[in-house]
Amino acid sequence: MIDAVPQPDLVDQYCHGVLRTELGLGTFETQLGRTGAPPAPGTTFFDTQTGFAVRRWCPPLLGLEAHCAPARYLARRRELGVLETVRRLLRGSGVSTYLVDTGLPGDLTGPGELAAAGAADAHEIVRLELLAEQVADTSGTVDAFLANLAEAVHTAAASAVAFISVSAVRQSLDPEPPGPGEVRGAAGRWLTRRRIQEPLEDPVLLRHLLWSAVASGRPLQLRLGMDDATGLAGFAAATNGLGTDLVLLHGYPYHRQAAHLASVFPHVYADVGPALVRTGARAADVLAELLELAPFGKLLYSSGARGLPELHVVGARQFSHALSRVLGAWVADGAWARTDAERVAAMIGAGNARRVYGLSGAGERRV
Amino acid sequence: MIDAVPQPDLVDQYCHGVLRTELGLGTFETQLGRTGAPPAPGTTFFDTQTGFAVRRWCPPLLGLEAHCAPARYLARRRELGVLETVRRLLRGSGVSTYLVDTGLPGDLTGPGELAAAGAADAHEIVRLELLAEQVADTSGTVDAFLANLAEAVHTAAASAVAFISVSAVRQSLDPEPPGPGEVRGAAGRWLTRRRIQEPLEDPVLLRHLLWSAVASGRPLQLRLGMDDATGLAGFAAATNGLGTDLVLLHGYPYHRQAAHLASVFPHVYADVGPALVRTGARAADVLAELLELAPFGKLLYSSGARGLPELHVVGARQFSHALSRVLGAWVADGAWARTDAERVAAMIGAGNARRVYGLSGAGERRV
Amino acid sequence: MIDAVPQPDLVDQYCHGVLRTELGLGTFETQLGRTGAPPAPGTTFFDTQTGFAVRRWCPPLLGLEAHCAPARYLARRRELGVLETVRRLLRGSGVSTYLVDTGLPGDLTGPGELAAAGAADAHEIVRLELLAEQVADTSGTVDAFLANLAEAVHTAAASAVAFISVSAVRQSLDPEPPGPGEVRGAAGRWLTRRRIQEPLEDPVLLRHLLWSAVASGRPLQLRLGMDDATGLAGFAAATNGLGTDLVLLHGYPYHRQAAHLASVFPHVYADVGPALVRTGARAADVLAELLELAPFGKLLYSSGARGLPELHVVGARQFSHALSRVLGAWVADGAWARTDAERVAAMIGAGNARRVYGLSGAGERRV
Repeated sequence: MIDAVPQPDLVDQYCHGVLRTELGLGTFETQLGRTGAPPAPGTTFFDTQTGFAVRRWCPPLLGLEAHCAPARYLARRRELGVLETVRRLLRGSGVSTYLVDTGLPGDLTGPGELAAAGAADAHEIVRLELLAEQVADTSGTVDAFLANLAEAVHTAAASAVAFISVSAVRQSLDPEPPGPGEVRGAAGRWLTRRRIQEPLEDPVLLRHLLWSAVASGRPLQLRLGMDDATGLAGFAAATNGLGTDLVLLHGYPYHRQAAHLASVFPHVYADVGPALVRTGARAADVLAELLELAPFGKLLYSSGARGLPELHVVGARQFSHALSRVLGAWVADGAWARTDAERVAAMIGAGNARRVYGLSGAGERRV
Repeated sequence: MIDAVPQPDLVDQYCHGVLRTELGLGTFETQLGRTGAPPAPGTTFFDTQTGFAVRRWCPPLLGLEAHCAPARYLARRRELGVLETVRRLLRGSGVSTYLVDTGLPGDLTGPGELAAAGAADAHEIVRLELLAEQVADTSGTVDAFLANLAEAVHTAAASAVAFISVSAVRQSLDPEPPGPGEVRGAAGRWLTRRRIQEPLEDPVLLRHLLWSAVASGRPLQLRLGMDDATGLAGFAAATNGLGTDLVLLHGYPYHRQAAHLASVFPHVYADVGPALVRTGARAADVLAELLELAPFGKLLYSSGARGLPELHVVGARQFSHALSRVLGAWVADGAWARTDAERVAAMIGAGNARRVYGLSGAGERRV
Repeated sequence: MIDAVPQPDLVDQYCHGVLRTELGLGTFETQLGRTGAPPAPGTTFFDTQTGFAVRRWCPPLLGLEAHCAPARYLARRRELGVLETVRRLLRGSGVSTYLVDTGLPGDLTGPGELAAAGAADAHEIVRLELLAEQVADTSGTVDAFLANLAEAVHTAAASAVAFISVSAVRQSLDPEPPGPGEVRGAAGRWLTRRRIQEPLEDPVLLRHLLWSAVASGRPLQLRLGMDDATGLAGFAAATNGLGTDLVLLHGYPYHRQAAHLASVFPHVYADVGPALVRTGARAADVLAELLELAPFGKLLYSSGARGLPELHVVGARQFSHALSRVLGAWVADGAWARTDAERVAAMIGAGNARRVYGLSGAGERRV
């Protein structure tokens, strides 16, 4: 193990805000699950890698022993109050900059509150689907909608650090931008169906959104979820050389394919993080798989945390611990030089994100 | 490593009987292969992870040294006789309850014999495809076939612990149950073609079988084989909330996807075991991959063993050894508490299966 | 770790020649990349597992310290001159026999030069697509083309050790050989389009090429690239029992699927190597995954190296180091006997390739 890879600051390049309310044991447990549904009879979401990782890293930040019982931890949380809990946890995470996807529903803190509670910087990531719905709410006609959408993307690009699309890649993605007639037709149909609450799922309109974001020049984040990364290869090829970077999020268990895309396309980057939160004690192994094909300048730390500040802590600790262990073993084996390991750790933890998103160095606030 | 995770008993939630006849070296070797075909010229199935694992775990149970030559092992086997060999091996496996898929052809011991030889409990898993063929043999008309099939599934559900379908998931699985007219048409066509020995491969009839089993409330085991687990996601979504559990078998190398399904659907469980028999010295690593996403209440031990009692031994030993090593390393690293590790080991080895299949505790016989 | 698994010689069953020209830092770096394109702004291909592995293994062979800076290494390379550099690197690789795919464009050394520089044997692998293009260049009619192609395959089979197809598996592969009429039609169309430089991508003609190679009895190498190995299952099933071996190259990250095919089809073999060059410090883990399902008589070492003799060194060293580490850990754990580990190491390093390709033993030259 590397005895000391200095990791003075982390840029979390993809996360959400935290809940503002006090949490009971059941609500807290639901946040550890992945769907909002209750656990199977006879089981609990505390009995998962994420649950065990929370119990490993968080109790000590609130003055308790690691691995104490969930009920005891929740009692201590209530004793401190939600504000103080959030403050202690975020400040204990080692994150100096948060890039926050503000597109989730629910009573979550915004970038400014996150920055204040965590004594950190924060910047906004704009969710394209939400932006389109907001524009649709205030546009009476197809022409107005399309013009306002173009304007909204342009405006967002000036203040946000990146765009994200959470649904587009689920579609069988035609790599080329749709023509104006196609887009007008699709927009008209969706504006009509929106009156019956239909969400934005039209593939033509989603492609139009993606290409509008690509045209802005801001990095575009794409969620892979459980879909095979190979579906993205065509879109990556079509956008190569246009000057806009693509950042692939949530590739597990197709993270090796995501790393492959990052290795063959100069403008493709891959995310490290949410998988480490989900896989707990296996984080070092999953991280090591990402480090197989991906050039080291192409990997970016994130937590993907939402709702619980505990997940921000777990993301950061799992990442730092796993990276130190993986790189340390390679140094000990003679496979890597120590100076290279320290340099790569700083790149993945913060440097690559600062370069890709045009962030200033640690210490300067921008929110 | 955990110095001692107590593993007093195992429930093998999916296995087959063993051969009743004496085995020569060639027959034994063929049973180590995966297809019944001979090995490639110049190679032997003893030179596989399974072959090496048999030579590691089994000779000591027959009074030989680990890793002795295959010919020596087979000679000792003949010296003891097949009955005594089976008895020694099964009783050395640490398995207290076998759930036995009785649907394989060949002269294999049934649940009762397995229980007697192994001094254990045993229960039957009913194979849906075989059940349908048996019903077809005694049904003169489509109406009789469908009525008798419904009756047979109902009867089987009262005595068996689970159903299994080995072919349905190979189909591109329409998640919804087929309509009565569709089912009648498909049944009529298959009953006709059965006269020319056509096996049951009609997708409509297979779906009807699956949904009949789902309606019974008994857990339904589904084999993934080498198919991507994502094909099952639709069926899992369609059966969510109906009160019947799905148990995914044989997910390797898509075991991470199987674990993912177990993490997002409350009624989906994943199998641990046959992959450990096949991957030998790599068992700890494969098991660790399953432990990434799957909630610990959702994993069930099995061996998948068939034909050779050696495979029952290898399954059980590989599992216990791998689990002890994986969890022990996490405890040593501080990632898990020791009490949690011991609790999770007992859950995966036996507790989860007892809950899902409604089995009584260790010590009570039901066969 | 195995203190000493003797690895006296390696057969590299798939590689290319090396560049004959002096290389500047930029050209050298491009050869470390995977596409010929420059790296992303702010990044370098030296910051990859391959880059770090080159810096680990190669400088000591040229009298420098491991992990010295790239510029220093390139300066030393120029100081020695390209001939002496190639000579030192190849002779330091431990490879005694090269099987060389001569179908790459560019000024690369042929098998004879590689053998002379490396003090080794070398044999040719014939690339089917290139053979077809060469035949087309000298054939005036469809009839002449098809007759000359048959002759060329027959002639090549007498002197080459194997055939390779690099494009056929990208097609959705109809497993059966095409009929004569189909082939004539496809040949006619392609001969016409060749005048406008159209490459050979017709699926019927590619299948005809594959089946011509299968009929020759020489081993046929197939590249998987990033395509799922399951597409090959049909072709493997169709060619089973015909007496021609298939060798799957470049399976990563689908190497577990490649190993599965090698375990269920007697005539299918899998490649070990290029993935180890690409994954550097992770080579032991990737190799271990291949060793899960593949029978040990079915794995063959190769480097996949092209252009840089450094990649021949990295392939050989990564393989030997990784194999020694993986097998050594299994011996230390009691999972494998030491004699078995040494035997398997010799099989994968050279023995299996000698048997499959009908090569004579170490020490005899055939070029």
